[in-house]
Amino acid sequence: MASSGEEQAPAAAVRVLGGWASHYAIRVYVALKLKGVEYEFQQEVVGSKSELLLKSNPVHKKIPVLLHHGKPVAESMVILQYIDEIWASDGAPAILPADPYARAVQRFWAQYVDDKIAPASVVLRGVVNGDKDEAAAQVSAALQHLEEAFVKCSQGKSYFGGDNIGFLDIVLGSHLGWLKAVEEIAGVKVLDESKFPELTAWADRFYAHHAVREVMPETDRLVQFNTYLISVLKAKGLFGSHV
Amino acid sequence: MASSGEEQAPAAAVRVLGGWASHYAIRVYVALKLKGVEYEFQQEVVGSKSELLLKSNPVHKKIPVLLHHGKPVAESMVILQYIDEIWASDGAPAILPADPYARAVQRFWAQYVDDKIAPASVVLRGVVNGDKDEAAAQVSAALQHLEEAFVKCSQGKSYFGGDNIGFLDIVLGSHLGWLKAVEEIAGVKVLDESKFPELTAWADRFYAHHAVREVMPETDRLVQFNTYLISVLKAKGLFGSHV
Repeated sequence: MASSGEEQAPAAAVRVLGGWASHYAIRVYVALKLKGVEYEFQQEVVGSKSELLLKSNPVHKKIPVLLHHGKPVAESMVILQYIDEIWASDGAPAILPADPYARAVQRFWAQYVDDKIAPASVVLRGVVNGDKDEAAAQVSAALQHLEEAFVKCSQGKSYFGGDNIGFLDIVLGSHLGWLKAVEEIAGVKVLDESKFPELTAWADRFYAHHAVREVMPETDRLVQFNTYLISVLKAKGLFGSHV
Repeated sequence: MASSGEEQAPAAAVRVLGGWASHYAIRVYVALKLKGVEYEFQQEVVGSKSELLLKSNPVHKKIPVLLHHGKPVAESMVILQYIDEIWASDGAPAILPADPYARAVQRFWAQYVDDKIAPASVVLRGVVNGDKDEAAAQVSAALQHLEEAFVKCSQGKSYFGGDNIGFLDIVLGSHLGWLKAVEEIAGVKVLDESKFPELTAWADRFYAHHAVREVMPETDRLVQFNTYLISVLKAKGLFGSHV
């Protein structure tokens, strides 16, 4: 292409097309911070999609997308594994454990989280129509399984990943902001300390971690954002069909 | 435990709890054959679940489960990656490519296959209620995306994985038996050569591969099995709620 004569800053080596409130995108920010990778963040506008997003993820047209030297990677769990594999040396902490069996266990539970927590969470937020009691029961049953999984995975240490935050910590932890917001929005106690003492203590540690603190939104902001999101979806005729 | 006095053969190092007709289980057989790993196959009975299955996969209670020295791994894509990581040396062919970006691309499309092909396929088989025209359109749209993905991934070679069958070949290829069966069951041309020339030629190569030939069921058997499965599900009151 001919030069336009205008000065344009070169694109950053690592860019994330995301949204500050998206739990899928939060996974990517946490992973990059864990690895100590600088990135440029591009906030997508609710109810709209940037040209760059449509070009980078033409199949799903969804955030997050990681652009690494311009090459797009989409789907949060795919991105997490890509980040782990690209920034694998130089003392960067590993996201997935080295042991194949431990990796399989974390991958199994991560898929479980996305199958059970995410669909129920959007019902409880009122973003998708559905039975709220059923959704609350589904989250509770999932957390019960994950409470037991935590004991097995952590082996008395701080995280699912042991001494450090790992794949499953990030995948489940990314939901914590919205689960806290759901408690206000739907008036349901979700992460009940009396039922899930291990997960509740883990959640506090996860929130306090340096890679999480800066990118995990405050509950109040999420509650406000949820109201705004529902109004935008309704105005665009997308309510009930869109997460 | 005290010895019962009876002679019992020790369990094989590698066992698969599966079903000959399950496309999810077929992935595991193909991967093990590719790696040259001997395994013992345990056929689960339709409409029933063995004690070993319930114990090995208490969360989902579904096949396939890989038992490696007695330790269970569940969920077909988790198993594929476990197999790739455990049998990574000794000249065994790799299932996922070495390059992180190529791995991310295969993982992205593999998830796409399970999101789009599997749910539509069971509707076309009549195992789950749904709009068959819509399901056929969904499969067709997915195959169009995968036709384009094949060109990009294979770079003129035989498989998504290049010269050898890889992760995405196995994930998509495992559906081929049922897609052929669907053509008879629902009277819909699915893998249409005029629309999907690359995928049609790839499917022939996949079928002819030594790791696939022995484990991919004949179309006629799948058509018969489908009728039998529907009758069992109806008899047990599970029809429409179960894949």
